[in-house]
Amino acid sequence: MTTGTPENPAEQLPPDSETPLPSVGFIGLGNMGLPMAANLKAAGVAVTGYDLMPAAMAAAAARGIPTAESAQQAAAEADIVLTMLPSGKHVISAYQGDGAAEGLLDAARPGAIFLDCSTINILEAQQAADLARAAGFRAADAPVSGGVVGAEAGTLAFMVGAEEEVFTAVRPILEIMGARVVHCGGSGLGQAAKICNNMILAVSMIAVSEAFVLAEKLGLSHQAMFDVVSKASGQCWALTTNCPVPGPVPSSPANREYQPGFAGALMAKDLGLATNALEETGVQAQLGRMAAEMYRGFAEGEGAGQDFSAIIEQIRTASGTQPSSQEG
Amino acid sequence: MTTGTPENPAEQLPPDSETPLPSVGFIGLGNMGLPMAANLKAAGVAVTGYDLMPAAMAAAAARGIPTAESAQQAAAEADIVLTMLPSGKHVISAYQGDGAAEGLLDAARPGAIFLDCSTINILEAQQAADLARAAGFRAADAPVSGGVVGAEAGTLAFMVGAEEEVFTAVRPILEIMGARVVHCGGSGLGQAAKICNNMILAVSMIAVSEAFVLAEKLGLSHQAMFDVVSKASGQCWALTTNCPVPGPVPSSPANREYQPGFAGALMAKDLGLATNALEETGVQAQLGRMAAEMYRGFAEGEGAGQDFSAIIEQIRTASGTQPSSQEG
Repeated sequence: MTTGTPENPAEQLPPDSETPLPSVGFIGLGNMGLPMAANLKAAGVAVTGYDLMPAAMAAAAARGIPTAESAQQAAAEADIVLTMLPSGKHVISAYQGDGAAEGLLDAARPGAIFLDCSTINILEAQQAADLARAAGFRAADAPVSGGVVGAEAGTLAFMVGAEEEVFTAVRPILEIMGARVVHCGGSGLGQAAKICNNMILAVSMIAVSEAFVLAEKLGLSHQAMFDVVSKASGQCWALTTNCPVPGPVPSSPANREYQPGFAGALMAKDLGLATNALEETGVQAQLGRMAAEMYRGFAEGEGAGQDFSAIIEQIRTASGTQPSSQEG
Repeated sequence: MTTGTPENPAEQLPPDSETPLPSVGFIGLGNMGLPMAANLKAAGVAVTGYDLMPAAMAAAAARGIPTAESAQQAAAEADIVLTMLPSGKHVISAYQGDGAAEGLLDAARPGAIFLDCSTINILEAQQAADLARAAGFRAADAPVSGGVVGAEAGTLAFMVGAEEEVFTAVRPILEIMGARVVHCGGSGLGQAAKICNNMILAVSMIAVSEAFVLAEKLGLSHQAMFDVVSKASGQCWALTTNCPVPGPVPSSPANREYQPGFAGALMAKDLGLATNALEETGVQAQLGRMAAEMYRGFAEGEGAGQDFSAIIEQIRTASGTQPSSQEG
């Protein structure tokens, strides 16, 4: 929650609120979408949800989120048509419909904003926004980081690609679901910022893991390496918040057998999007590409469901070494 | 300077000081060694310096540092024989002498501590310490980070490999020259901690640079990328302190045409040491090795004298792109 948003705006509107919060049609009530929609509901937003999966619909109903019988019906009366879907293909298909079925663009009411919070290809995000604008709507991409924990707590970070006026219009809704909302530029640039961040994150996690494995082989303790690097020029979030060895950072997934956290499958997905962007732009990012390859291999095995910091085990295996006995 | 060390201990000894500061024979008065020796002198340490280069000897005399006519003479009366030399070969040669000339091990007085602050191969650091111990002396490796600026300001970080008792004995001297002194373990582990840190630093600087070049190609502004990543999981020192593009971090070398800072040649040297350690241990650090290759190529060109963050220009060149017009 952000400053100025009371715990229960249904009972007490924010003092600086001149207009009521926009209503939201929420398409995609999965692990992320469901708690995001629940936070909107709790904040007094008129939200109507829809998901293709009956289990997700039941979970939404159990949390008191009104649901519709179709995506189109969820969108029909909404000021904001919010999508939280697995891929760009899903988003564009939901917007356009597929063959017989109508799409969200056919169902939304005039003046609606299409707000896509999915993490998808930049070009697809721009294409989705173009489709919405061609149909007379406004559009924004606003991918998130922070995971399921952040979605439940309302502490997500949103990276928004939209015109200034559209950003201003969607911001109050995003601030209910997140703690940090950054306007990155025009359509697609929310996606761009997210993949830039996650490419750096992947590379730095592998670098930290390589250094820990080297330290183990050299007889340098995890704690000594952490004590030096965490206060020196090698400091990075991958070390000081998501430390890939147990001990130095008690809250890191390494202390709970790499339960995510941020799952390897999701990192591999994001790095696939980064690789697409590198290919489309011709940028020679050798470390980014190598990290993408490593996480693709990681996610094809048991890494898919582990925290991405478990990549250190792959580096140990490749190095023919065992976890240091100082662990655990 | 650390807490408890007065501005001028020659006039006022630290209140918690039970014994006088040990005397130091300081071998190697280069860009780093000279200001380090000057800080010892200013703190009231009896320091005697020596360097093979006449210009360095003249510079030392100009700063009021007593000099000797040989390394052996500088070491003869010292409690601590401190070396600050370019490579492990130099350190071992200085310890042992070469052919006709005697070495420091022949000249030092009983009970002396051999304190090597050079950044050298781990195996050579261990070999140097073994030589000192075999000759009846105590030994420590204590490579530094913080560069010439840190050496002048007395804000270096020392990573110390030594037995506990030796660490305790050299600590007061190191605390005069540095702001942070970390005991990393036994002989060689100071070197180990430094190369682990610098391997992470090199990889994260390249990752940040790759992400900025991608951002440029995608139309995402430097400031927007910085605003997102600096507060997100991609945060790292390479971005938030040594940002490779001008603007977001005014103190970073990118704002002064990549004047170092930390020169490419020094990063390439440290990564050479890291590569040696990877080969000796069999650790498969793919990103670390690729970063070492990139910095080796960088330092063979004009990167040698530029800050290591100028690697971003190499990535732009490889990507066939120009610095974004938002710079400068």
